[in-house]
Amino acid sequence: MAGSPSPPPRERPVGVFDSGVGGLTVLHELLVALPHEDFLYLGDTARFPYGVRSGEELERFALQIAEHLLARRTKLLVVACNSAAAAALPALQARMMETTLGVDVVAVVGPESQMAVDSTHNGKIGLLATPTTVESGAYDRAVHAADPMVELHAVPCADLAPIIQGGFPFDEHVVETVRRYCQPLREAGVDTVILGCTHYVLVAPMLQRMLGRGVRLVSSGPAIARRVEHALEHRGLGNPREDEGDYRFLCTGDADAFRDHGTRFLQMPLGDIVHVDLEREPAAA
Amino acid sequence: MAGSPSPPPRERPVGVFDSGVGGLTVLHELLVALPHEDFLYLGDTARFPYGVRSGEELERFALQIAEHLLARRTKLLVVACNSAAAAALPALQARMMETTLGVDVVAVVGPESQMAVDSTHNGKIGLLATPTTVESGAYDRAVHAADPMVELHAVPCADLAPIIQGGFPFDEHVVETVRRYCQPLREAGVDTVILGCTHYVLVAPMLQRMLGRGVRLVSSGPAIARRVEHALEHRGLGNPREDEGDYRFLCTGDADAFRDHGTRFLQMPLGDIVHVDLEREPAAA
Repeated sequence: MAGSPSPPPRERPVGVFDSGVGGLTVLHELLVALPHEDFLYLGDTARFPYGVRSGEELERFALQIAEHLLARRTKLLVVACNSAAAAALPALQARMMETTLGVDVVAVVGPESQMAVDSTHNGKIGLLATPTTVESGAYDRAVHAADPMVELHAVPCADLAPIIQGGFPFDEHVVETVRRYCQPLREAGVDTVILGCTHYVLVAPMLQRMLGRGVRLVSSGPAIARRVEHALEHRGLGNPREDEGDYRFLCTGDADAFRDHGTRFLQMPLGDIVHVDLEREPAAA
Repeated sequence: MAGSPSPPPRERPVGVFDSGVGGLTVLHELLVALPHEDFLYLGDTARFPYGVRSGEELERFALQIAEHLLARRTKLLVVACNSAAAAALPALQARMMETTLGVDVVAVVGPESQMAVDSTHNGKIGLLATPTTVESGAYDRAVHAADPMVELHAVPCADLAPIIQGGFPFDEHVVETVRRYCQPLREAGVDTVILGCTHYVLVAPMLQRMLGRGVRLVSSGPAIARRVEHALEHRGLGNPREDEGDYRFLCTGDADAFRDHGTRFLQMPLGDIVHVDLEREPAAA
């Protein structure tokens, strides 16, 4: 990209990053909700999963990725990874505000927590998330910042993301696992459930069947899409084109594996996937 | 089943049939919306596709399948196939009313047409369907019965169902095909689009992206689920259980092929699939 003229800010892509392919469920919503924007997605698959990393490590990774995406001239940054959002959001926001562009950062956790609080009628919200995310307390803080009186019933789901990533078609083992994690939420009588991991969107139909139609499932994709739209409007950064934008992929691990796993999550063709080495070219391009 | 005691009517399964796996997108909605019911799905894959058959043939097939499902003690019949619904609904309804149960028949075309008419604000509705379905005029009649002043812009999509059935992951060819069929609807300025073929639900995200968020996509699944729920309530036939019901499959063709194609459409495990020969055992069991 060195030497090519810089496009005007409105025509630059929105940057999205995640530890792997899970964040593609967020990109999916962005593609449907904001068809005129370009997107650049980075999956840090070489260092997946983030759930086992320390907060310091995740902060370093997130800043490194943000610099890389900024160097590729993204006009807004979406953190589509729960672990990274929980660990690194304040540092990221501080760093982005220092740039000349003043790039906004939109991250999972906050938007879907607000949506869940807006949705509940009985004040009982369920949370399905990885043990690391539950332990971080990030959803507790976000939900209670929006409404201190709401009860949050968190279920740590150790097995769910791996079996969703690993297997398709889903078999009875997946159904039984999902059923097991739903049970405490049924007993608690929640009327709203946050899908606190981007992978869980793929079992939303099963969850809806087990929890019943009266329970509203809230995932980060639609909540993030709304925030991104508002942020772009607020800054006058919406892409003015009338036809569809494009979307491209960077990944730090194997590009073929990214494609194999990713298509199920995006539900659209993946097109070009470019391998990048963040350690060797931290802010290249 | 001969010799087993007949369960009380409320505890019997809902029968659903289609020419193949496409109707599984309708079953998907039924499983999510009516988790306490049992379902028995018959895919007439040996005689797929129905789109090339004459009206007389389809009427004969539909009556034969209905007799078979009735013999298996289904309490309601869902026709999840557009071609069969267009050709055979009056004959089916007449036949079902003759049975001692007075089994209701709920079929695609009518429910989603009503939903589209209820949804449109500018009175311009689009229709994506197979050429056979478009030529049958069934949607024209259903939409105009609901509101004679609405404009229906029908696009016959010769290639769409085959490429959806044939290929996953979707590639750029699928995207280009979908885009081509969307173009006349964009030009007509419709604000609501009927997905007039059960297969098309699988490209709903692409359609939504190409048509824009302001356009509402209406598919038969949710509309059918609501009708089935009302019909069961009206007759006092809702299953009284509190846990999830089960669902089983019959198919007239190869069971393994049914499973391979079907999982994508159902988004849940398929479990047992039993081969049946309708010609040799028209009302067996």
